Amino acid sequence: MAAKIDEKDLKRIREQLPWLDGLGIEIAEMGDKRAVLTLAASRDVLRPGGTVSGPAMMTLADAAMYFAILGTIGLVEMALTTSLSINFLRPPPPGEMRAECRILKLGKRLAYGEAFIYSAGADPEQPVAHATMTYSIPPDRPAPPAGTAS
Amino acid sequence: MAAKIDEKDLKRIREQLPWLDGLGIEIAEMGDKRAVLTLAASRDVLRPGGTVSGPAMMTLADAAMYFAILGTIGLVEMALTTSLSINFLRPPPPGEMRAECRILKLGKRLAYGEAFIYSAGADPEQPVAHATMTYSIPPDRPAPPAGTAS
Amino acid sequence: MAAKIDEKDLKRIREQLPWLDGLGIEIAEMGDKRAVLTLAASRDVLRPGGTVSGPAMMTLADAAMYFAILGTIGLVEMALTTSLSINFLRPPPPGEMRAECRILKLGKRLAYGEAFIYSAGADPEQPVAHATMTYSIPPDRPAPPAGTAS
Amino acid sequence: MAAKIDEKDLKRIREQLPWLDGLGIEIAEMGDKRAVLTLAASRDVLRPGGTVSGPAMMTLADAAMYFAILGTIGLVEMALTTSLSINFLRPPPPGEMRAECRILKLGKRLAYGEAFIYSAGADPEQPVAHATMTYSIPPDRPAPPAGTAS
Repeated sequence: MAAKIDEKDLKRIREQLPWLDGLGIEIAEMGDKRAVLTLAASRDVLRPGGTVSGPAMMTLADAAMYFAILGTIGLVEMALTTSLSINFLRPPPPGEMRAECRILKLGKRLAYGEAFIYSAGADPEQPVAHATMTYSIPPDRPAPPAGTAS
Repeated sequence: MAAKIDEKDLKRIREQLPWLDGLGIEIAEMGDKRAVLTLAASRDVLRPGGTVSGPAMMTLADAAMYFAILGTIGLVEMALTTSLSINFLRPPPPGEMRAECRILKLGKRLAYGEAFIYSAGADPEQPVAHATMTYSIPPDRPAPPAGTAS
Repeated sequence: MAAKIDEKDLKRIREQLPWLDGLGIEIAEMGDKRAVLTLAASRDVLRPGGTVSGPAMMTLADAAMYFAILGTIGLVEMALTTSLSINFLRPPPPGEMRAECRILKLGKRLAYGEAFIYSAGADPEQPVAHATMTYSIPPDRPAPPAGTAS
Repeated sequence: MAAKIDEKDLKRIREQLPWLDGLGIEIAEMGDKRAVLTLAASRDVLRPGGTVSGPAMMTLADAAMYFAILGTIGLVEMALTTSLSINFLRPPPPGEMRAECRILKLGKRLAYGEAFIYSAGADPEQPVAHATMTYSIPPDRPAPPAGTAS
């Protein structure tokens, strides 16, 4: 992993985002302007009809963008979503899902990217959902001393 | 509550959406083309910096639209979000939040609406977030027999 | 008109946006965090089926936000749209249209607002389209000397 | 061109969308689930600051999606935009622009796709704008007799 964030910082960040564990979201890849995250198959994210819930997919897309940013510019705890737009294209079957995010613009203050969400093992021509997201990046971002709660 | 759904069906629907309880989301009002929902102040929804997480607000907005639809046309378990777009306007302080949703179009197959999210007790001129949402509504929707899992 | 821009500057700005005249877009009201613009009934904006074209309505919504900003903070020629999202809710009949825009957040660098588009004389409960928009506002904005091309 | 629409129908459709000629929009490619359109460099689409106007780019993206649909399923005059969302990433210099659109879902009633807009000759890693669009497709669509106004 060539991501500009080390395992220790990544672990600390994750502990501050407990809903990721709650949904079974894992980071599969992090690198230059991109990230791939997975969402575990679990009963907790299914909605009536047996399909994965919209909010679970929104959370997955949003997290994919966050980690794509962190993997590219390093530790920026206060990067915040300023907008997210998601279209649900096909009801996904129950099962693991995967979000593939890439950053389309990385400015000093704003990052913009898109994420495709797939059912595990599905045709890459058949995304389940597509999201676009804008994040604001704090103007100055000294890395906090290790062990400091932010 | 003049909502076109009774307490028993509402309770059953909520049991199928366990993430609402997980976030402390409650229905405050449901009525003709509108709904008001609240999100409890809790540590679980806070992100670094002490602000309520984006995914918690997305889930709140999405649920507000769902219950605005159910309150207007009755039990439609398979109403599904087809798109959601949210803009975060101000970082909310920790504390209870409120989403006010109204439906702007209710067609046979699609509903479109918007939700404003506020910090409890805040100025109505100062929304924390603004979302627009489209839901698809199944073409025929006979109410399932009571007690049937859907 | 309590708008913070005088008639002379407004006239000059309009001359720099020739597509407004091309579509027959007029400013009906400009004031504190809001603007109302009209789009003339003309053959040029109709698409097959006799309905007003999407691009004409997008242009109308975008201009309504621009003039709402100018009416609130004065002459800012370089305010630029950073995002626009529009949902078309009902095909409008041929005829004059009206966009009502209000600004929901006006920060130092970003403005966010929404616009409802109506057919002239139509029910305010039946908007034809709904748009949300974000504009960036240049950090410092001295008014250019009169007569200077920008 | 393997597009499922012949030159004669395409010419007729274009005559019904006169704003395309007004902006100097041309179809460069049309094919299976995709289309590439160009926007001529002209003074008429420039806004203060010398950058191509937002509405011109919105119109370009919207048209790219329309012709991607027509190139895939044939003549559907009444395909209508139901939503469009665009993010402007970099102010484009004056000059020709290009929109590359691909359809991500083509259902019986709805099509969803995205378009990237570039300055001519620019780095494909540096899009000027990114749009997502949903079109509704009429349920039955017999081709009208040639020469019939629709």
